[in-house]
This record gives sequence, C-alpha cells and structure tokens, in this order.
Amino acid sequence: MELTGPIVLSDNRYGKAENRIVRIYRDQPRHEIRDVNVSTVLRGDFADAYITGDQSKVLPTDTQKQTAYAYAKKPGLQPIEDYACTLAAHFVDEIAPVDSARIEVEEYAWQRVTVDGSEHDHTWVRQGSEVRTATVTVSGKGDRQQAWVIGGVKDLVILKSTGSEFADFLTDDFTVLAPTRDRMLATSLVAQWRFAATTGVDWDAVYAGVRQRMVEVFATLHSKAMQQTLFEMGKAALEAFPVLAEIRLAAPNKHHFDFDLGRFGIENHGEVFHADDRPYGLIHATVQREDAPEAGPAWLP
Amino acid sequence: MELTGPIVLSDNRYGKAENRIVRIYRDQPRHEIRDVNVSTVLRGDFADAYITGDQSKVLPTDTQKQTAYAYAKKPGLQPIEDYACTLAAHFVDEIAPVDSARIEVEEYAWQRVTVDGSEHDHTWVRQGSEVRTATVTVSGKGDRQQAWVIGGVKDLVILKSTGSEFADFLTDDFTVLAPTRDRMLATSLVAQWRFAATTGVDWDAVYAGVRQRMVEVFATLHSKAMQQTLFEMGKAALEAFPVLAEIRLAAPNKHHFDFDLGRFGIENHGEVFHADDRPYGLIHATVQREDAPEAGPAWLP
Amino acid sequence: MELTGPIVLSDNRYGKAENRIVRIYRDQPRHEIRDVNVSTVLRGDFADAYITGDQSKVLPTDTQKQTAYAYAKKPGLQPIEDYACTLAAHFVDEIAPVDSARIEVEEYAWQRVTVDGSEHDHTWVRQGSEVRTATVTVSGKGDRQQAWVIGGVKDLVILKSTGSEFADFLTDDFTVLAPTRDRMLATSLVAQWRFAATTGVDWDAVYAGVRQRMVEVFATLHSKAMQQTLFEMGKAALEAFPVLAEIRLAAPNKHHFDFDLGRFGIENHGEVFHADDRPYGLIHATVQREDAPEAGPAWLP
Amino acid sequence: MELTGPIVLSDNRYGKAENRIVRIYRDQPRHEIRDVNVSTVLRGDFADAYITGDQSKVLPTDTQKQTAYAYAKKPGLQPIEDYACTLAAHFVDEIAPVDSARIEVEEYAWQRVTVDGSEHDHTWVRQGSEVRTATVTVSGKGDRQQAWVIGGVKDLVILKSTGSEFADFLTDDFTVLAPTRDRMLATSLVAQWRFAATTGVDWDAVYAGVRQRMVEVFATLHSKAMQQTLFEMGKAALEAFPVLAEIRLAAPNKHHFDFDLGRFGIENHGEVFHADDRPYGLIHATVQREDAPEAGPAWLP
Repeated sequence: MELTGPIVLSDNRYGKAENRIVRIYRDQPRHEIRDVNVSTVLRGDFADAYITGDQSKVLPTDTQKQTAYAYAKKPGLQPIEDYACTLAAHFVDEIAPVDSARIEVEEYAWQRVTVDGSEHDHTWVRQGSEVRTATVTVSGKGDRQQAWVIGGVKDLVILKSTGSEFADFLTDDFTVLAPTRDRMLATSLVAQWRFAATTGVDWDAVYAGVRQRMVEVFATLHSKAMQQTLFEMGKAALEAFPVLAEIRLAAPNKHHFDFDLGRFGIENHGEVFHADDRPYGLIHATVQREDAPEAGPAWLP
Repeated sequence: MELTGPIVLSDNRYGKAENRIVRIYRDQPRHEIRDVNVSTVLRGDFADAYITGDQSKVLPTDTQKQTAYAYAKKPGLQPIEDYACTLAAHFVDEIAPVDSARIEVEEYAWQRVTVDGSEHDHTWVRQGSEVRTATVTVSGKGDRQQAWVIGGVKDLVILKSTGSEFADFLTDDFTVLAPTRDRMLATSLVAQWRFAATTGVDWDAVYAGVRQRMVEVFATLHSKAMQQTLFEMGKAALEAFPVLAEIRLAAPNKHHFDFDLGRFGIENHGEVFHADDRPYGLIHATVQREDAPEAGPAWLP
Repeated sequence: MELTGPIVLSDNRYGKAENRIVRIYRDQPRHEIRDVNVSTVLRGDFADAYITGDQSKVLPTDTQKQTAYAYAKKPGLQPIEDYACTLAAHFVDEIAPVDSARIEVEEYAWQRVTVDGSEHDHTWVRQGSEVRTATVTVSGKGDRQQAWVIGGVKDLVILKSTGSEFADFLTDDFTVLAPTRDRMLATSLVAQWRFAATTGVDWDAVYAGVRQRMVEVFATLHSKAMQQTLFEMGKAALEAFPVLAEIRLAAPNKHHFDFDLGRFGIENHGEVFHADDRPYGLIHATVQREDAPEAGPAWLP
Repeated sequence: MELTGPIVLSDNRYGKAENRIVRIYRDQPRHEIRDVNVSTVLRGDFADAYITGDQSKVLPTDTQKQTAYAYAKKPGLQPIEDYACTLAAHFVDEIAPVDSARIEVEEYAWQRVTVDGSEHDHTWVRQGSEVRTATVTVSGKGDRQQAWVIGGVKDLVILKSTGSEFADFLTDDFTVLAPTRDRMLATSLVAQWRFAATTGVDWDAVYAGVRQRMVEVFATLHSKAMQQTLFEMGKAALEAFPVLAEIRLAAPNKHHFDFDLGRFGIENHGEVFHADDRPYGLIHATVQREDAPEAGPAWLP
C-alpha cells in the first residue's frame, strides 16, 4: 500500500520534565518539607516551530522551569494539587500561544526523625517506596477555561501472605499452570483517581483516604484473582469519596514462587518463596461512576 | 460535587509483561540470534473476573507466557513484526473471550565478534544502546479481523556538536535563557511508525531505512530547535516509505551546558560541557500522511 | 617496561549472587515476613577449575542457591546475621575444597498495614528506602575456624533543612564556592559495623540502636561539614555498643542548591531548592576502637 | 565482648563523584568527542575536619569539580589515562594537605553516523553497552611521588550460543543441577588491568588490544566453565602486552535456561531460552605476572 497524501504535523506538545524541587517551610521553628518532581507540558499554537523553525511563539522550556521553581515559593507546594492548578493556569492565562497546560507532580514522602522521644524540628528520613502523584490539565482561555485534576499513588508495594487463590481459570493447549487455593499476592500498585471537582476539595484527605481504603480491601478481601482485588479496591475508593469520578489501577503481579524444597526432604507449605523479577502479570482496571463528567483531555499523555 | 451513580467497571485489560526470550537459529554452523522482551495484552469478555471473581474466561498470564516462548520456536522471531502478528492472531482466533490482543516486542541488537579478521559463527557482543520495537494489535474474530502494526526504535542516543541554535523565542518575566546560535544538540530518541499495511512489507528494510533517514536529517539539518529537527526527521521517514501512515517522535533535550571556565582565565568555545541529568526539555511530534487510514486501537496502551 | 615472568592465577572466588528469598513464618495466625537478597561467595582450592578446566572441586553456584533457600526454612532468617553465620559455616564445614565462605544479605523492611485501627495479620507495605545488611565471613576448618560479622544499613536517606554550614575551607585558584553558615544537608547513608563477637549478640537491638544513634547525631549536631557529622555518628554508635569494633561510613553529599529567585524579585531564604543529581561530594570515614580485634578477611570483597 | 579502648578515626577519604564531562575537539571541521564520568578521591591530612570540624585543610569538592572540568580543556581527555595522571598529580603537587589522589574515569564510546556513505563531521550515536575505565593513583610529594595506572572495561556484554559446557562438578545433597555438554554462555564482563609503567604506553592501543584478545578467547575457547574462560582471557591479555602486571576479571554468569517446550510437543535443542535476571553466578579471577611490581595503593577503593 502506498500513500500519496501531503505530510502534515498532526499533533505536538513540549515542556520541561523532571524539575526536582524541594520546598522548605521555615517560618516556624518546626520546618515543613515538600519534595517533588515537576513536569510541564504545553499544547497550543506551536506548529511554526516544527514546520518552519520559527520559535517566536515558543516559550523556552528553561522558562517553564524557572516558573515551576518560582511558584514553589508562592503559592507553594501544599498541597501539590493546588500548586499544579495554579501553575497550569498561569501558562494558559499569561502565554498567548498556549491553549492548554498539563502539570505532572510526583511527591516523595519524608518522615520526621525522633530524638529523645520527640519529633525533630528540621530532620527527616525518606518514608516508604510509594510516591504521591497529581496531574492537572487546564485548557482554554478566559470564560471557556476548564480544569481537570487527577490524584494518584504509584510504587505502593503491598503483599499478603495468604487469603489469595487462582483457580477455575480457562485452559488451552499451552496451559500448564496448576490451580492454587492459597498463594502469596504482591504488587507495586499504580492508581490514579479523577476528581469531579477542581475546587473545594481536601486533597490531602482524599489521598490519605483512598490509599487507606485500597490497602484495607487488599488486606481483607479473599482474592480470587488480582482482577477482582483491583476492582474492589477501586470501588471502595469511589464509595468513600463521591467527589471521585473515576479511578484507574495498574498492578504488576509480582510473582512469588514456592521454592521446591521437597527434593531435599524439607516441607515448604508457603514458607520459602523465590521472588521473581520477570516476566510478571500486568492487570489494568478502570472503575467509574456512571454519572461521571466527561474526562476531556484529563488522560491525554 | 457529589456523584451518586452506580459504580461500574469501564475498561480492563491484562497480560504477561516482559518475557525475556532469546532465540538461536542453529541449523547452519553460522548461528543467528534474536534477543527480545515480549509483552502480551488481552482485551475481551473479562468483566466477570473483576466483578464476581469468576475466572472461567481468563486465560492465565502464565499460559500467555508459555505461548510466547512456543511461538519463538515457530514461526520464530525473524522479524519481530511477523512474530507479533502471528502471536496476536493466535489469542484472538483461539481463545473465545479474547476480542483483541496486543503484542509488544523490544529487540536488543547483537554484533558478531571478529576473530582473525572474520566474523565469528556463534559469538556476539551487545550493540549500541538503541532498541528496536514492534507493537501489533489484532482485533475482531473471523472476517471482521483487523490488524495494526507499529514499528519503532527507542533509546537511540544521538548528538551533534554544532549545527544547532535556539534563538528568537518567546519571552516573559521568567525568561532568563540567553539565545544561542551554536549549541550542542543531543537526545535519546523514541520513534514509532505506523504502517498502512500488515503484509507484504519488508519490515527489516523499513526499520533500517527509517533509522538511517532520521539520523541523516538530525546530522545535516541546521536545527533552529529540537521541534524543527523532529518534524523534519519524521517527514523524511514518511517520504522514504509510502507504506507509512504516521510517525510519532519523542525527544528529551539532553542538555549539555557550556562549563564556565572564564573564571579561571581559560577560553571555552563549545569545548567543555557539563552533561546534565535533570530537568530536560521533552518534545513530542506526530507527523502523518493526510490520506492515512484510521489508527483504530493501534495506539491504545 | 616489559615483564617476562610466568603468568599465574593469584586470586579467585565465586558464588551465587542475588538470591531473592522471601520467608513467611505462618505458625501463628499473625504471620511474620523476612524479605532478603542473599549472595554467596566461596574461596578455596579452586585453581584447577580456572587453569585446566577441571570442575571436580567446584560446587555449582546452583547448589549454593538451593542451599540458601533451604536454610531459609531452617534455621530461617530471623535474624539475618544468624542465618548468614549458619550458611557460611555449612559451606566451610561440609564442602571439602572450601576454605572460607562469605554470605552477604540485604533485608528489605515491611510494615504491617492497619485495618480498623489494628495491625493486619498477613498484609504489609514496603517500608522506607533503607536496607539492612549483614556480611558474614567464616574461614578455616575445625578448630581453626573463625568468623566475622558485619552489620549495616544502606540507602538511609536523611535530610536536615538547617543546622549545617560549610565555611573556612582551603582555597586555591579553582575555588569559586562561597562559604555558607546555613545550608541543607542530605545524604543516602551507607554504614557497616564490625562486631567484636559472633555469638551472644542481640543483632536486632544493635541494628535498631546504631541506626537511632546515627540519626540522632545527624539531627542534633550542628554540622561544620559532612566529615564531622560522619565521624560523630560513628563515634556515637561505638559508644552505645561496646561490642562494636569498627564502623565504616560512606555518605554522598546530595546537593540541594538554593534556586536563584532574586532575578524575579522573589526572596528565597533557604526555601526553594534544586535537588541536583550529579556530581556529588562523597565522604568516607572509618571509626574504630583502638583495642579492636583484627579485621582479618572481614572486609575482603 | 566489651571493648573499652579510645575511639579513633582510622581512615578517611573524600572527593567529588560523577562529574559528567563532555569534551569536543573542534579545531578541525571534523570534530572529535570524548564523553566521560570523572570521580576524584583525596587522601591526606584531613583528620581535623572529621574530629573538630576544622575545615581549613579541606579543599572543597566543588573545587575538585571545577578543576576536573578545567583539565578537560587542557591537557584534555585524549586519552583518559593521561588526563587522570595529570589531574591526580595536580592535587598532590599543589594542595599541601593531599598525600594521594585517585582519579576514576568512565568513558562512553560514540560512533560517527554515516551520511551518503561518508562519516559525518560532528554527529555521533552512542556505541555499544561497554564502558572504558581508567583508575589512576598518585601518591607522595616531590621525589617520593609514585603513580599507578589501571585501565579497564566494564559492561562488555558478550554471548556464545555453543562451545560451552558445565559437567563433572562436585556434588552434595543440595545438588540438583544436571550436567550439560552444550550450553549458552553469556556475561557482562568487568576487567581491570594494572600497568607496570605510567609513561611511554600507548593507552588506546592497549585498550583495543586487551579487549580484542579477551573477546577472541571467549569466542574460540571451548569452555568447561566460566572460571576457565576468565583465566584464559586474562592470560591472553597479559601475553599480548608485557607492560601489564595484572588483570582482574569479574563475570556474572547471565543464565539462559532452555525453555521447556517438550510439554507442547515442540523440540527445543538449544533454540529457545529464557534469559533470567536473578540470581546469577558471579566469578572472579586475578591473573598476574610473577615478576609484577607491587600494587601499592593501586587497588584501594
């Protein structure tokens, strides 16, 4: 097949990725820390930069970086959802060629160290493997402006040593897996929840609450498969927070294989496992309210 | 805002990620090697697995793995596009609940070692940082079946030490970047090209040709910005191969900053650079033929 | 210079690296988890394997792996120091050509999740970035057998937002760094402490105690440089635990640079930082008791 | 056991790690590129910095960085062994408290792109996974000054699809591995060779020659075990270059397991492999000339 039509630029975007900003609040003797990784993405009237090399409508990615750091001072980074909304709106409002801006934030958690039984004022250790995320898209000038906020968590590594099975599955000629009624279940969860509102939300409370509900369901639901666990986790999150329109979950099935010790006369009833690296099952689920507002460009890359 | 509608599963998919398969062709004394990383993704009638925990329509990811290895024997992995087409069709054709299958392949290149001036029959060293990719989607049963093939390359690290500028750009209050008429330009390119056909294509020739055209344009075009370079690279690829419908390019701008040696009385005219890690500019472009057939699910994750 | 002497094998060792073992203790409803990465290293009468290819004295690395998993059942992994001692002694005692064995263990911490205010019996999330380490060397057969135990922690990421300076340093023609009386100090600490005993030690208590003393000193000492902080951390650990002979500390100085917001009329008094990736200062210190017993092969790679 | 002796600083060192320097030679239209990662390590009279916090003898790591970049202009980075010798001598000669300096360099290779059949003047792609290394130690002031140069390669990924066996090995109760007369052998080699001279050596020729000799032996020697292969590779390198005193090799045995396709009625005679991640065998060998000069501090960390 040979195509003969004109060759055109059909989509484009650009920005500054991975600005590693740390913000200390030091007005009080007890400092606060926010440690983030910020990426900016702009869409708009940038075709000339690609087609003719004319950069006159292109705001340098270095400028986006300077702005991201400046906004970390004010409005600041508490919480990251508000920071991202303000920064995104700045680009759309102030930079003429920009039609929409997306701000992606990863936040790394820190835990105060304890000295003589008290939390220290200005010293922390990194806490957990998990990363809080926020993705905000602001689109349109003036009255037509709309915004979408997505919160999330990634690299939430969670494991249960029983209460999980996988059996009664479809088989074919290539199926050699034995069914099991008791296995280890472990994942490194990625979840993103889309809000039906962009203001009046207690972002920190939703983050803590969604995380807690997901963890509780993972722990207490007897799992017939990772699929079922994911759906129930998402459902529990939406039930707990009616402001959520939708939640998307991705879960690698981090396989832990019973190690065969029987060859050495040693019993192994789910006690010694090999934690395998690759390959791994990878399960995705999207759970949503039927009356959720349109996602618009919220999930665009 | 409070949503009250029913909570539903709106999308799902699952598969086995990162099967690390190495295939040796040893019918002749001169062996051939194909070294790949294969991921399978299935979509279909799997809602019960999520909602009720009923796994009776779920083909285990372990079975998908067994099948991926079995198909590496026959039809084999030369080239990866054909392997992916055959494996994807297998899942759709043979497994009743599967509506569509996507196979993603990364291929790592090896170079024969030279001994006494001759290429060795069965020994290789890993070649380059770049990875060849293929993503095939097969959708629909029987007569309604359609397929989409996307070829690609990633981690193609390329650098030019002159012939690049960035000037005459938009400025605002946060702009401190100085324009420059001579800078280093470097990236780690990701490109994916969608074919307008799924048969009768010399996949290897297209891979080699697209890579070569992109490299040539990167080298010879005086670049006014990464944006322009990307567009021209994509355009050159489509011009060279009329079977291509579309090409998507993503390029981190791997910044190399002139190191300030003037403080020590040492001249530095583009000779000593600091290669910075983060942040980095990140530029995306999609270039396509106006008469390209519909992409359908080709770009779905 | 041309050497003409015979070419000889002067040193060798081999083993199985990175056995990823997870051990669940499930005798009680409240399970326990130990998640480790175990490497074995053997030294001994293996020269023939290298020089003539005769493998008759070589215990396969696969066998070492099987043994590492078997010993995770019994004696088990609580604590890792005892596991490593027993496994190392096994290789020296039971395998004739083995003169000495070193077992290296990394342990990843898990935290029980909380459900309805109570800790869950069999579900955990990964805790912190830090990794507990143990390195045990057992050398010599029968009565001549000796052992050395090294405990440790790595990837302990710790940060203080004030209480650190760097000034009054040596300068030369290449010195442009400005002295500062108030800076952020952050590192990803690696510490290893050598015990003067191999039995009768509460390994878990020493681990927790050394970690706590190091964190306290990092927090409370006004730091004139990372060097001083490291020495005082090590000293505090040895003072707290007289069973420790020596502690070795390595600390990358994870630089956080004040971001220049003055150009935009924004004050930045240690509030907005850029967390840089590379390069980084790297400081090493060894602190020991003068009456420490000989280290012998304890620190051999 | 309780130690009661005084607590002392017994060893220390510090420096700036991972200076990512790129040097372009642009005197001619045909540019040259050297892309390196440089780390500096100083030893000397620095105890006060640790014990009292007095920094007056401490040359800042930032100064070491500035110097590393300045020396990349002149003497420059061709070859890296000479650069490292000059930079190390600078710190020992010019900075009073410095007793010895070690400079570690990693060099990343680039390959010119081809345009219209000709090599391009100023555009390259990254070449191979392997990294050239150099480690230089300079110790002592004035007449007592000595130097040691170690060249090397790391991440040299090499694989042979036949010509390797592993059989007739020692067995015990935990041995389940089957002997094999034909297996795949693959590794990611690290090798470091110590020179008996520090001047008058063609460093580039030795690098190319050692690499080639090692690759040839890996390819052509029928391997009875990785141990034998390593020894013969090291021996061949020393035989080819009498200026070499010693070579140290480390080789992970990157296991490729025959995938069991017999269950599906498919023959698999060394054709389809699973490339496993962990665990892996890890083999070390040191090969040297009996008349090699003393290594002194050459191998100190």
